[in-house]
Amino acid sequence: MTKPFQPPSRILMGPGPSDVHHRVLSAMARPTIGHLDPQFIVMMDQVKAMLQQAFFTDNALTLPVSGPGSAGMEACFVNLVEPGDTVVVCVNGVFGGRMKENVERCGATAVVVEDDWGKPVDLEKAEAALKAHPGAKALAFVHAETSTGVESDARSLCELAREHGALSIVDAVTSLGGIPVLVDHWGADAVYSGSQKCLSCTPGLSPVTFSDRAVEVLKTRKTKVQSWFLDFSLLTAYWGGGAKRAYHHTAPINALYGLHESLVMLHEEGIEHAWTRHSMMHQALLAGLEVMGLGLLVEPSARLPQLNAVLVPDGVDEAAVRARLLAEHGLEIGAGLGALAGKVWRIGLMGQSATPHHVTTCLSALEAALIAQGMTLAPGAAAAAANRLLLV
Amino acid sequence: MTKPFQPPSRILMGPGPSDVHHRVLSAMARPTIGHLDPQFIVMMDQVKAMLQQAFFTDNALTLPVSGPGSAGMEACFVNLVEPGDTVVVCVNGVFGGRMKENVERCGATAVVVEDDWGKPVDLEKAEAALKAHPGAKALAFVHAETSTGVESDARSLCELAREHGALSIVDAVTSLGGIPVLVDHWGADAVYSGSQKCLSCTPGLSPVTFSDRAVEVLKTRKTKVQSWFLDFSLLTAYWGGGAKRAYHHTAPINALYGLHESLVMLHEEGIEHAWTRHSMMHQALLAGLEVMGLGLLVEPSARLPQLNAVLVPDGVDEAAVRARLLAEHGLEIGAGLGALAGKVWRIGLMGQSATPHHVTTCLSALEAALIAQGMTLAPGAAAAAANRLLLV
Repeated sequence: MTKPFQPPSRILMGPGPSDVHHRVLSAMARPTIGHLDPQFIVMMDQVKAMLQQAFFTDNALTLPVSGPGSAGMEACFVNLVEPGDTVVVCVNGVFGGRMKENVERCGATAVVVEDDWGKPVDLEKAEAALKAHPGAKALAFVHAETSTGVESDARSLCELAREHGALSIVDAVTSLGGIPVLVDHWGADAVYSGSQKCLSCTPGLSPVTFSDRAVEVLKTRKTKVQSWFLDFSLLTAYWGGGAKRAYHHTAPINALYGLHESLVMLHEEGIEHAWTRHSMMHQALLAGLEVMGLGLLVEPSARLPQLNAVLVPDGVDEAAVRARLLAEHGLEIGAGLGALAGKVWRIGLMGQSATPHHVTTCLSALEAALIAQGMTLAPGAAAAAANRLLLV
Repeated sequence: MTKPFQPPSRILMGPGPSDVHHRVLSAMARPTIGHLDPQFIVMMDQVKAMLQQAFFTDNALTLPVSGPGSAGMEACFVNLVEPGDTVVVCVNGVFGGRMKENVERCGATAVVVEDDWGKPVDLEKAEAALKAHPGAKALAFVHAETSTGVESDARSLCELAREHGALSIVDAVTSLGGIPVLVDHWGADAVYSGSQKCLSCTPGLSPVTFSDRAVEVLKTRKTKVQSWFLDFSLLTAYWGGGAKRAYHHTAPINALYGLHESLVMLHEEGIEHAWTRHSMMHQALLAGLEVMGLGLLVEPSARLPQLNAVLVPDGVDEAAVRARLLAEHGLEIGAGLGALAGKVWRIGLMGQSATPHHVTTCLSALEAALIAQGMTLAPGAAAAAANRLLLV
């Protein structure tokens, strides 16, 4: 007979999920109620309003998709892209590649603007692609590439899209809550995120927001949305506001309790304060990494504070380091994905994992693991460097 | 500033979600760990094995889709149905209609076998449709129609499909855990369920199982699966077994803790005992309903014990009755959907909501609400009739 599962103690500093606060965990353990319960509907309205605040948008179509970030990504593409459309897709990491897959599975043509992994999207190349493909339905890009730790210039890319009459589709899975995601200021049209990154909720929900321009495109489609589950023209009858909700699918009640609580916590702190905290922890981590002689993949101007792709030093067995961190410290950091497998570690400082405790714990543990790998390092120096910054 | 959400006390006896045991709620509040954590992978294997037991199958492709039942339904169709295919869809309620939508959104043709809401699928009509459409890719039907409370003959329908060289696609959302779902014995090819019905987990996961025959069809597709998120040829690299898991999407960690615990509880009780319990509670509910002169929509031979569509008596305001149950007893029962709106109540006896306490609470509360509506009933008689059966 299988026994109840007791998870091990972990400190989550990979590419997500991040550490979940006990307030969020407790919220998820509150009794389940019905998805059409009048009081649940009050909570849905609050989730929607808090997501609008987090996205800095007034978009009426703002809701959490009942699935992980990949479902949110797919929701954006299947609702906006039709067979025969052309979409310019900027690929500078794993998630841009996934966008391309989504476009093609909608029966549309993906025009790929490729940049090296670890570089931000090149605005000139994106503009050239839009010029070369007049009538492109959308420009799609990843604001914060979780596979590389790169931030691309979302405001400029959204502007470019608008200038060329294209919608902008923005992956903000790793950015929301960690760095500014200013949907209305950017004029972004479709933006999706995830619950388990800088919002520090458990994985499984994907906040999405559509501009009025995107809603208009949805309303004037020639074909039905290929996914019934993700069809926003149906889903908005449930999430659309008002007391009369139409049943679409059964919402993941307790997961939404958790998201609600994580948004309450974000707003208690103040989202601008959260951005500052992420930035400070990143600087502190960097100070410690520098002491150990470790560099980042990404140039300073495009670094995400919440996701640090650290170059693995020559001669170090990166998997052994991660295994040691997990076994001895319960500390999870991420491996490289795709082309970066074996070449980088991905250290996340997301949401509740962006604290002085996390920074110094990670630096101390990593230092010990590197010493075990034969590197000559001064014990305690890395955490001390971080602490000097944190004490200022 | 929005405050943390405190759900009201509810007794869930609608069409799902059902009451969630505190063991499952507590499991969901355990600390989040990574989706590639070695110990999480052990848990995934256990979930898979327990789902195989619950489905009575050896199917290697057995996993919980990271979304609600609608996502599980869509996963079955998008993985197996290609543009140009023909699928015979049996429609005898809301969820059969949703299957038809799914088929059409896959670019396939749905041949609809229609039966009255409240009747099981007519085997002769299904056979005639298969004969009239040789080469049909699949026969799709709902085992337990949540909108009407009807059970259809899954074994015979799967047999029919096989005889005509078609796959069978079976909606077992409301049946799994409440009545036998014997996947291998039926020879069913693609079966999906939901977490929030007779498994009494929170909503948001959809257990799915594919026969080897279905896997073969998936492997020999001419086109890519239109959903990247639900593409089983990618997803099985994560759920497929072995220590080397390939990242697909971030699994909903804490929701899976909950499903794991609900499956542990199901196996502790014994699934056959769970079926008996559902049947006994249904008989007790019926005895009480009869005393009040209330009938069911469905003929005795096709009634689901776990979902009772009760005919609203003439002159009774059904919405007022539900509102009163909710306000005075915290008791949720379901309204009629679609053609049955205003005509039936749907009383669920699912999973943890299939107990003597639930039966007698519901009968007493309903009796009081009907007396308030002007019906002449003997107070206490309905629950007493149920108790007489329960004490045997």
